[in-house]
Amino acid sequence: MNTLYGNAVVGQSGGPTSAINATLSGVVRGVLQNHGQNIAKLYGMRNGIEGLLREDFVDLSVFFGGSAEKLRLLEQTPAAALGSCRMRLPEPAGDPALYERLIAVFRRYQIRYFFYIGGNDSMDTVAKLTDYLRTSDYEMRVIGIPKTIDNDLVVTDHSPGFGSAAKYIAVTMQEILRDCAVYRVPAVTIVELMGRDAGWLTAASALGRLTGGAEPDFVYLPERPFDPDQFLSDVRVALKRHPNVVVAVSEGVRFPNGRYVGEGGQSGATDVFGHTYLAGVGKVLENAVRQAIGCKVRSIELSLPQRCGAHMASATDLRESVAIGKAAVRFACRGGSGEMMTFCRESDEPYRIRIGHIPASEIANRNRTVDLSWINERGNQVTDRCCAYLLPLIEGEVKPVFRQGIPVHLII
Amino acid sequence: MNTLYGNAVVGQSGGPTSAINATLSGVVRGVLQNHGQNIAKLYGMRNGIEGLLREDFVDLSVFFGGSAEKLRLLEQTPAAALGSCRMRLPEPAGDPALYERLIAVFRRYQIRYFFYIGGNDSMDTVAKLTDYLRTSDYEMRVIGIPKTIDNDLVVTDHSPGFGSAAKYIAVTMQEILRDCAVYRVPAVTIVELMGRDAGWLTAASALGRLTGGAEPDFVYLPERPFDPDQFLSDVRVALKRHPNVVVAVSEGVRFPNGRYVGEGGQSGATDVFGHTYLAGVGKVLENAVRQAIGCKVRSIELSLPQRCGAHMASATDLRESVAIGKAAVRFACRGGSGEMMTFCRESDEPYRIRIGHIPASEIANRNRTVDLSWINERGNQVTDRCCAYLLPLIEGEVKPVFRQGIPVHLII
Repeated sequence: MNTLYGNAVVGQSGGPTSAINATLSGVVRGVLQNHGQNIAKLYGMRNGIEGLLREDFVDLSVFFGGSAEKLRLLEQTPAAALGSCRMRLPEPAGDPALYERLIAVFRRYQIRYFFYIGGNDSMDTVAKLTDYLRTSDYEMRVIGIPKTIDNDLVVTDHSPGFGSAAKYIAVTMQEILRDCAVYRVPAVTIVELMGRDAGWLTAASALGRLTGGAEPDFVYLPERPFDPDQFLSDVRVALKRHPNVVVAVSEGVRFPNGRYVGEGGQSGATDVFGHTYLAGVGKVLENAVRQAIGCKVRSIELSLPQRCGAHMASATDLRESVAIGKAAVRFACRGGSGEMMTFCRESDEPYRIRIGHIPASEIANRNRTVDLSWINERGNQVTDRCCAYLLPLIEGEVKPVFRQGIPVHLII
Repeated sequence: MNTLYGNAVVGQSGGPTSAINATLSGVVRGVLQNHGQNIAKLYGMRNGIEGLLREDFVDLSVFFGGSAEKLRLLEQTPAAALGSCRMRLPEPAGDPALYERLIAVFRRYQIRYFFYIGGNDSMDTVAKLTDYLRTSDYEMRVIGIPKTIDNDLVVTDHSPGFGSAAKYIAVTMQEILRDCAVYRVPAVTIVELMGRDAGWLTAASALGRLTGGAEPDFVYLPERPFDPDQFLSDVRVALKRHPNVVVAVSEGVRFPNGRYVGEGGQSGATDVFGHTYLAGVGKVLENAVRQAIGCKVRSIELSLPQRCGAHMASATDLRESVAIGKAAVRFACRGGSGEMMTFCRESDEPYRIRIGHIPASEIANRNRTVDLSWINERGNQVTDRCCAYLLPLIEGEVKPVFRQGIPVHLII
């Protein structure tokens, strides 16, 4: 394997998470540990590939120096500290000029290592850049590092960022269940959770079951078609058992005909990728219960705090996020390129993983959903096996540095 | 002062908070410290006064015994562990039979001490019961202990429960501000916060200002009439300065004609007290921005976690909540009755309070709002003086006991 010497660049892309900065910290730590053998300088691109094209860089080697304090604060800061973007690279054949511009920037800054922290769309960028480099005389190593609260990346056992979002949901659901338990008046509470196509986050709302806590009466994932009649019948049965019924539902549940249940509740607007912008399944179900059953009912959308509630991050997630960032640097320095780093689970109990890698092209544009065998037959709960998979990912609490009652965030 | 010997009863009423169980723990601790001099046994009434009428009691002296562990878990459990109710006592003259039933229950259980943890409506109950007892030959001491996330009880410097809700909001707002900062596309995020008639919780969203963090561009409290034209003009000005505009708004803001801004967003349903059920100001403003400005816009309702997010409770709030519960027992044993316990602030820096008391009749049916001099002239921000009042109340973090990644809650 040839030694490649030059600078490195790292970027963050896609939706924020509570752990994406821990991965950035891992990359910084990896470069520091390389001691200049392969990598001289680490640049951060602001707003992902968009900032790269604008040459909007921050010299992270200078910014962090050897400051363990700054790295620690970075790890407790939610959302992409370098900024993010939603830009996806076009097919190389479709816009060769754009790729030429990218290569020109790489040359100008002597960038030989490219680290991109992101989800599905970002791995598409990694794969396309890798493809293009094969046809170019510019030598550069390109590594994708997974990041998603949705846990929908294939191959990897789980993705950095998911554990923290899952923990936030598991903890908040326990608190909501306590809150809902105080009155004797029959009432239904519907909690809408993130996860467009994969129900992993919604499944995490059931984790109290394994820890001696409580769990929602029903959990509806997007992996199974949503039958409104069955939903109302489920709720009616539960109301006969106890007055406070709590339901967790994924924003992405669909009717058997494929339409999103939440679609009726909003404008049908789409994001830049043409994904339907989802919101409102909670409100739709709230209205359904009010009309059909007539009891007290409310809906709650946990919304953004699910992905940025870093004060309740999973210590396991942050530790792994740093580790995978460091591993990416080591792997690239040893010659790896075109790959996404992965977690491979070796054991549930004791929980043990190792870090691996897989061609980014095998990741892009595919979705990992909850195995149907991990959902009960009626499609309104997850199985113990599903919870056992999830539980190690939320273990451990972080102790953020606070200043006068508020966690300190690092601004780059 | 005569010594009164008998049993005690404690109840929780009104909306849950993250600290109402810390106050319950304080009452238990106060009774334990009394060593049976005045109080033999402590009963808990389930679901407040409703449970009292049903004689639905739990013997807390037995339940807690001397278990410091159980008391500690109680203090970290959100929402009323004894259950709550929304029942308010009628005027004694209007339903003397009900009061006779209450006295009969007190006699049957030899209850001589009555502690009621709650807000405005609960203090009304304390005041009415006190009034009735004056006309009765049954001797009993009745003490109200404040509880409200809204901080709207008069006389007391602040109320137990408020500091934890304020801290949850201050911390979550910092995280949302980080999340909103990652993209360069102009976008407006509207965060709707609890507080029907008082803007204290919404004001807490600005606390990052004093701690080296960030703050929302604008903060709209219900104390000032809400002018939709000024709001849109505020947002337009902010969008010229930077792409990510974040607005905090109280659920209770009203148009100059007195109508709730959120009213249009929902059904106009009312709760059992005839209060209009509020929801939707965030959505109303989101739609206004979309139509008038046309940029990317979303609204977030922090919802129930504001009042039950006990994992982010204020250590100051929980400490004071325990202390005021203990003080209530001491005060009653020394002869106090008909009063609500209060906090009197002696100094901001260093923060120092003492515990006092005031006739409950002076508290009931009054609202403490944010002083208009603590809101800026344009009515879209709070002053530093307001933040300086709030800051000590959110200081300090709790370290809940976790089991496999999830805080342990105590079920009574």
